Amino acid sequence: MERKTGLILALDVTDRLEAVEISEKVAGYVDAIKIGYPLVLSTGMDMISQLSKFAPIIADFKVADIPNTNRLICEQVFKAGADAVIVQGFTGHDSLEAAVKLAKEENKDIYVVTEMSHPGALDFMQQVGEGIAKMAADAKASGVVAPATRPERVAEIRKIIGNDLSIISPGVGAQGGSASDVIKAGADWVIVGRAIYQAEDPAMAAKKLVDEMKEFI
Amino acid sequence: MERKTGLILALDVTDRLEAVEISEKVAGYVDAIKIGYPLVLSTGMDMISQLSKFAPIIADFKVADIPNTNRLICEQVFKAGADAVIVQGFTGHDSLEAAVKLAKEENKDIYVVTEMSHPGALDFMQQVGEGIAKMAADAKASGVVAPATRPERVAEIRKIIGNDLSIISPGVGAQGGSASDVIKAGADWVIVGRAIYQAEDPAMAAKKLVDEMKEFI
Repeated sequence: MERKTGLILALDVTDRLEAVEISEKVAGYVDAIKIGYPLVLSTGMDMISQLSKFAPIIADFKVADIPNTNRLICEQVFKAGADAVIVQGFTGHDSLEAAVKLAKEENKDIYVVTEMSHPGALDFMQQVGEGIAKMAADAKASGVVAPATRPERVAEIRKIIGNDLSIISPGVGAQGGSASDVIKAGADWVIVGRAIYQAEDPAMAAKKLVDEMKEFI
Repeated sequence: MERKTGLILALDVTDRLEAVEISEKVAGYVDAIKIGYPLVLSTGMDMISQLSKFAPIIADFKVADIPNTNRLICEQVFKAGADAVIVQGFTGHDSLEAAVKLAKEENKDIYVVTEMSHPGALDFMQQVGEGIAKMAADAKASGVVAPATRPERVAEIRKIIGNDLSIISPGVGAQGGSASDVIKAGADWVIVGRAIYQAEDPAMAAKKLVDEMKEFI
């Protein structure tokens, strides 16, 4: 994924028309559009190819299965036109490696969730976040997903993974993270959802974020 | 889910016609058919309703997201005609509760993965398997998924969750677990894939397993 603006749109809508309209408006300001299962299951896998006309698509499917199933899922997603898949890391090294191997063959990207920021993430995930980040580096994934709500954690994760992997970072905007703070802390991309797609003028909201980050990119 | 035979088919194929043909053949011997994303992404969500004519459908999507996204995914899956969804427990109590709450409203089932049996499950999952089983019981999920390859673990998990939750147990057949051993250890259903759908006569293979378990059900 090429970094031009440092901005990724989290397109958390479930309606096809709305998804297309927003993507069209912000296409000039984002390096990628991240979509999830709620949109794809309610519209169909062709939603991926339709949106890929506007920007590279990151399928945030948080894939969390055995190696062979992880591979089969990523195969379908890449075939549909996505450029990257987000996978969970807690299912271990072989599940991750199966996804990364396929992605490398197809010149695509795998991003690994290291930690999440909802309350339940404290139950089991928080204590293994750094181990997952290290595993992602060992497996030579393209990058990790680390929450922008805690820039100090982004800086920690950066130390663990080094500079070969990217950090994409959700939580900017509605969830309170600041785009420039997260980039300064070591993230390569910020992922922004509601603050763009619920804005009266999504393009203007995206442009404002891009301008804010410009000097730190 | 009602237990008649104790057998669940893991329909791990990706072709629509093959999926329908196998389901038709074994419909009389299974209490449910478990399908995953590889099949649904390659055919479409209508695959669920098509197969639900043969048996209740368990969507093994290993849902592993934040509470709101978990709810949105389960909504789509139930709407498509599935009777149950398998979720990961790793993402914590609130993610699980969001899925269970919706399932109860719609009179559907949520099964929680407590541990998996691929090598990578030792990296992060094994040490929290019992904690996840306890969380599943606290959240009043319908049941848990625990591997048949280790009947002694099934017995441990049964002690933790008590008798209000079901145990559905994959790993019988090609992976080496014995159906009757797992039922004796405390599982309510065994989940069998290749040993049925790759058999020359899938109906006969299913019948044989049903007969083997009959006296322990």
